[in-house]
Amino acid sequence: MMDTILNLGLNDKSVEALAKRSNNPRFAADSYRRLIQMFGNVVLEIPKSAFDEVFDAKKKQKKTKLDTDLDAKALKEVIEDYKKVVKNHTRRDFPQDPHEQLVMARDAVFRSWQNERAKHYRRINNIDDMLGTAVNVQAMVYGNLGDTSGTGVGFTRNPATGAKEFYGEFLMNAQGEDVVSGVRTPVPILELQKIMPDVYNQLREITTRLEKHYRDMQDFEFTIQDGKLYMLQTRNGKRTGRAAVRVAIQMVEEKLITPQEAIFRVEPNQLYDFLVPRLDEKSTKVEVLATGLPASPGAAVGQIVFTAEEAVKKAGHGAHKNPVILVRAETTPEDIQGMEVAAGILTSRGGMTSHAAVVTRGMGKCCVAGAGDIQVDERAGEMRAKGQVFKEGDWISLDGTSGRVIKGKLNTLEASSDDAELQKLLSWAEPFRKIGVRANADIPRDAIQAKAFGAEGIGLCRTEHMFFAPDRIPHMRAMILADNEKDRRAALKKLLPMQRADFIGLLKAMDGLPVTIRLLDPPLHEFLPKREKLMVDIASLTSANAKQKKTLVEEYRDYGAKGAGDLKKLLPQLLARVEELHEFNPMLGHRGCRLGITYPEITEMQARAIFEAAVAVEKQGIKTHAEVMIPLIATVKEMSNQGAIVRRVAEEVFKEKGKHVHYLVGTMIELPRACLVADEIAKEAEFFSFGTNDLTQTTFGFSRDDVNKVLPTYLAEGILKQDPFAAIDRDGVGELVRIGIERGRKTRPKLEVGICGEHGGEPSSVEFCHQVGMDYVSCSPFRVLTARLAGAQAGASDKLKVEGERTK
Amino acid sequence: MMDTILNLGLNDKSVEALAKRSNNPRFAADSYRRLIQMFGNVVLEIPKSAFDEVFDAKKKQKKTKLDTDLDAKALKEVIEDYKKVVKNHTRRDFPQDPHEQLVMARDAVFRSWQNERAKHYRRINNIDDMLGTAVNVQAMVYGNLGDTSGTGVGFTRNPATGAKEFYGEFLMNAQGEDVVSGVRTPVPILELQKIMPDVYNQLREITTRLEKHYRDMQDFEFTIQDGKLYMLQTRNGKRTGRAAVRVAIQMVEEKLITPQEAIFRVEPNQLYDFLVPRLDEKSTKVEVLATGLPASPGAAVGQIVFTAEEAVKKAGHGAHKNPVILVRAETTPEDIQGMEVAAGILTSRGGMTSHAAVVTRGMGKCCVAGAGDIQVDERAGEMRAKGQVFKEGDWISLDGTSGRVIKGKLNTLEASSDDAELQKLLSWAEPFRKIGVRANADIPRDAIQAKAFGAEGIGLCRTEHMFFAPDRIPHMRAMILADNEKDRRAALKKLLPMQRADFIGLLKAMDGLPVTIRLLDPPLHEFLPKREKLMVDIASLTSANAKQKKTLVEEYRDYGAKGAGDLKKLLPQLLARVEELHEFNPMLGHRGCRLGITYPEITEMQARAIFEAAVAVEKQGIKTHAEVMIPLIATVKEMSNQGAIVRRVAEEVFKEKGKHVHYLVGTMIELPRACLVADEIAKEAEFFSFGTNDLTQTTFGFSRDDVNKVLPTYLAEGILKQDPFAAIDRDGVGELVRIGIERGRKTRPKLEVGICGEHGGEPSSVEFCHQVGMDYVSCSPFRVLTARLAGAQAGASDKLKVEGERTK
Repeated sequence: MMDTILNLGLNDKSVEALAKRSNNPRFAADSYRRLIQMFGNVVLEIPKSAFDEVFDAKKKQKKTKLDTDLDAKALKEVIEDYKKVVKNHTRRDFPQDPHEQLVMARDAVFRSWQNERAKHYRRINNIDDMLGTAVNVQAMVYGNLGDTSGTGVGFTRNPATGAKEFYGEFLMNAQGEDVVSGVRTPVPILELQKIMPDVYNQLREITTRLEKHYRDMQDFEFTIQDGKLYMLQTRNGKRTGRAAVRVAIQMVEEKLITPQEAIFRVEPNQLYDFLVPRLDEKSTKVEVLATGLPASPGAAVGQIVFTAEEAVKKAGHGAHKNPVILVRAETTPEDIQGMEVAAGILTSRGGMTSHAAVVTRGMGKCCVAGAGDIQVDERAGEMRAKGQVFKEGDWISLDGTSGRVIKGKLNTLEASSDDAELQKLLSWAEPFRKIGVRANADIPRDAIQAKAFGAEGIGLCRTEHMFFAPDRIPHMRAMILADNEKDRRAALKKLLPMQRADFIGLLKAMDGLPVTIRLLDPPLHEFLPKREKLMVDIASLTSANAKQKKTLVEEYRDYGAKGAGDLKKLLPQLLARVEELHEFNPMLGHRGCRLGITYPEITEMQARAIFEAAVAVEKQGIKTHAEVMIPLIATVKEMSNQGAIVRRVAEEVFKEKGKHVHYLVGTMIELPRACLVADEIAKEAEFFSFGTNDLTQTTFGFSRDDVNKVLPTYLAEGILKQDPFAAIDRDGVGELVRIGIERGRKTRPKLEVGICGEHGGEPSSVEFCHQVGMDYVSCSPFRVLTARLAGAQAGASDKLKVEGERTK
Repeated sequence: MMDTILNLGLNDKSVEALAKRSNNPRFAADSYRRLIQMFGNVVLEIPKSAFDEVFDAKKKQKKTKLDTDLDAKALKEVIEDYKKVVKNHTRRDFPQDPHEQLVMARDAVFRSWQNERAKHYRRINNIDDMLGTAVNVQAMVYGNLGDTSGTGVGFTRNPATGAKEFYGEFLMNAQGEDVVSGVRTPVPILELQKIMPDVYNQLREITTRLEKHYRDMQDFEFTIQDGKLYMLQTRNGKRTGRAAVRVAIQMVEEKLITPQEAIFRVEPNQLYDFLVPRLDEKSTKVEVLATGLPASPGAAVGQIVFTAEEAVKKAGHGAHKNPVILVRAETTPEDIQGMEVAAGILTSRGGMTSHAAVVTRGMGKCCVAGAGDIQVDERAGEMRAKGQVFKEGDWISLDGTSGRVIKGKLNTLEASSDDAELQKLLSWAEPFRKIGVRANADIPRDAIQAKAFGAEGIGLCRTEHMFFAPDRIPHMRAMILADNEKDRRAALKKLLPMQRADFIGLLKAMDGLPVTIRLLDPPLHEFLPKREKLMVDIASLTSANAKQKKTLVEEYRDYGAKGAGDLKKLLPQLLARVEELHEFNPMLGHRGCRLGITYPEITEMQARAIFEAAVAVEKQGIKTHAEVMIPLIATVKEMSNQGAIVRRVAEEVFKEKGKHVHYLVGTMIELPRACLVADEIAKEAEFFSFGTNDLTQTTFGFSRDDVNKVLPTYLAEGILKQDPFAAIDRDGVGELVRIGIERGRKTRPKLEVGICGEHGGEPSSVEFCHQVGMDYVSCSPFRVLTARLAGAQAGASDKLKVEGERTK
């Protein structure tokens, strides 16, 4: 949980005592000032800006630039103004009784458990709402009692690279808040050795002991008061994926942990770090605008936004369709939602342990922090760098590994898993893995990539993706617009050699590994212009000028528009067909196997393409293992209908070509009904692949495309603990999966069962799939490493449990 | 199954022998002609029209009007032409060998089991595809060997009224086909007594014996050859609902059956006959166009269509949104799909046993048959009556009880269940019924109606139906368009007294019986203009003329448009909000409890309206029992969130008004997930009501609004046996219902469980609900009688099974 440190106890009277004790009236006044501000901010919930305004006004009045230029007298004036701020906002005076301050602060902490920010944090970190929070009350030590005092934070190893080096930052004559807020740029911790060698050695000795005790890298905080070291806190340190792997391996080598423990020291999601893209600096002229701290590795390219709200609005939920870079002077916990959706974060202030740096590393997201050469004016919506002004929407590129901020939109280069330490960790992990890992890939390039990452087959090839290619979509459209079987077959005939070529590529790439090919799934209207666009174009045609008409002709050229004259007839014709195909709920409509049942010639063509490809590949001496997958099955009769077509076409092709190949016919289980009658379906299906995206939609009655109207409220209110499209909902969707597997295997004990929804690459879902006895998970190529480690952890957990039982 | 009688065995040679034997060359030639035609039509699948053309051409050539005016010579010429038709269509000669004719005919019958018409018939009658068909080969008897021969069909009781009277029709010198085809209008069977008293008495004696033997009303066919009676067939006769009830009661009185058997002699759906509407003849000037036979009771008002295809096209699937009257000279089995969707059927030819009459009675659909005063020209798309011409789309009204055909669109009057025989049957049935029957009703009028039919409560009051009323929708829209909670609350405040008044009416009407009130369910965009309409209106605005603009201003007056100038700003604003609310899959979108969770003030207002109403009614000394139903629950936390609001508001209202009332808070179980976690949900919900419409949608992944793109193919291919939205799918949806009840009652053994989907009034679904232990079904008021009888039959079946076990 986020922690807040409040220094309490000062009041109008004790501030004078502190002034005397520290012989530093300025420090005393500043401490009191900070207390009022923090207390006001955190406990009384007065916006930080209310205090900032007062402070900035005083600096302006005194014509100073730095905070530290304000003297004790000026700070006392600030204190009086702060007290007025408190009075204005709360209608009562700032509490003078230290005990009252403590009680109020304590209550505020407990209250904070329920605030939106905390809820959001818990949600994205999967922390149970029922856990509760705690208040620690400690005696106060001051890191800012003068030049023999100081404060710092650090890690026992480098949290970015995992290197075994003492790592951290400190500031003399400062409190912790100064270090992490990014307001003052802290000093590397090695400098402490020069300033206070004894304290430095003691700190190294203590933190080394702590690391040994906890058997993990520590993230610690300390304060020095009048030359004496106080440890404030220690905890297992957050780290990047590369650091996690390296630390784990080193600790095995240091005999701190066993290899079996080591594989749990890396979050499966963190392996993504090895696959984070790098900037392709050859792709365009590289103009470095600034160099900040390499706070979180990887690369990010996106459009500038200056607020978390804008980030959310522009990026949308889920995948980075509109990548944005959140640019801030510094980030605060209020920015979390924006940071979550941003492709990368850039701050002008703050160090390697600043909020932005820590949070982005946790998220595995690229961040450049403390880039002091850029000026960020959030209110004006401007960023200035090298004399240039950048506005919201301008493109920049970040290199989180070098800390560079680059103008414009660079391409990114894909990474590889070819890393010795990673491979070592995987070599420890893999023997525990029982569940197979396949990849979702539609084209040979992705298949080759996935195989390189260790995929043991293709679990989902979406054939419709092939139909959207520009050379194919005209035939697809001709097929859809045909009003009789003959014309449909003619159009399909043109698609056949293209599909066959695709399948040859995939089967060759996988070289005998299973390749699961799903037959056409999406509703046909997805291939045609949108209904409302056609309606508007028809309505606009009357008043369109020559230029507008020309644009329209261009847009509809594919459909046979040659001149403006054609549009008047063509558009209503197109609209009529689109209206015919229009559905109120396309997700529940004419798609999946329903297409193949109403248009068997589509299934025939696709089956022919698959088997002709398999035979051609095997004739080249390469093995194939095609698994033909019928989507959206709800009843066994759908399965037998489509299965019969596939098997018939297979026999036809084998006879024509004089060669048999091995193949399976199975189905995607993605409807509740299919799970319930899985015993029936398994009579006809040789494998099941759970499509948990659609299964989640129907089980919850949530449209994935629309769920964001509801999901934020649901997560905020604690109605859902997590997005069921991200991690599998074990109680509902998972229960159906269990039922489906149990009933399916009742009929066919050796039924091959996998998952090909996006859950297949999410660690907790992989664990679930392992637990319910699936044969494999299939996920996007870039999730293959994650799935492999998650599968191994699940297997190792089983083993540990069994061993635990034995020793009882 | 439909049966076809083929008279075989005649050929070029034996026709001469028959001519001699019957001393009637004309009859022999006509028999042979008919054989070729029927054989060609049924066995060789040559269209009937091909023969009709030949025959009509001959009549024209001979300048005759009636078929019987053609002499033997002319008929022989027709035979030669018919043979050419056969040769043309089949490239072979009409088979002369009687044995070959028999073999071909036999094979054609077996083949016919698989034809589309047969499949369709089996589907609508729930006949298993695996049952198969049979061929009976009988020696030929002739009803057309002259004036001492004849043929007829009849019922042992009146199939329309149930009266105990010998009922039927016959024709002398005719074959069965002449009676049922409607080509010749047959003679009432009582006439036979005068013509051939011995035969008549023998027929009465035989059929009375048959009725006693089968202990049910018989539908028989007979032929008289040269004065000798032959029984061709007997079977239990189809009858109207009123007839079924009357026959059942009479047979109990006659001690043929027991009262317990009697309740199975009426199909629950047939009770609808007691509720069929009558024409309101005061509503408009009644102009009777013709009077035909009262072939099937009830009233029907609709637009004329002349073909089955048009009927399907115009009426659409399901409820009669666009009522059509199918007008034909005579109907044939090819018309079944059209008859199914039509509101009523009118034929100009045929008797009480014609195809149209029999089929419509089976369907419980109004039919006027054999209205000889109208001329139907299907090809021209015209009906002529009383010198007027009626075209497709013109409105007519049918009175199926009197046989009158009335010009224009009359209103219809609702029927009542206040019938002594019906009440007697119900009094036998009701003691067996374990399952309660409630009704779905949104307004007091429907509630009162439902109670009169015997409903034991309201199982579903859809509050949104109240919001669509013209005086309310502006406030609803204001609520939706509000961009802050304050404005939303202001709009809701205006809706509160209206909702309260609705609930007062309902609670009073039900007088202490349970009233289940569902909170707001549909997505909010349903209350706003359609997105594509707004887009088109905006696009059209540029080129709109003054008149078009005026129309637009009218349309948007509700939203504040006063003049054309307002539209330019208003429409994009409206579109922006509609876009915000737009969903790709509204069925899976922001609706149900999701509305109440994101806008708790809606739930608060509705709860307040319910409890203020309940308190007000109880203060008048009338008991209330409100059950507040939260829709679309997927997780227990949704339930606790909304339940807490309802219970808090209840306490507030009770405190304000100084009076407590009894109420329950529960949920509609309509998502697969809710069934799976029903044990959790039952912790918070005091009752479950299964919403099997939505549950069917999500379990199958079928959008009810879109399923007709798929369903016809699915039914035709046998993938589905019946529309799962009509009768509950026991294997899938039913399995979830079972799981939901079992798990819910594990937590709360006395959990009240019902169903409020449209399945609640469908007999086989009611049986299912009984079997899985539901407390009640809820259905539309006009289904209440059906549900009561279906529930009683289910209870009686249980009792019979138990008794069967005991006697083993």
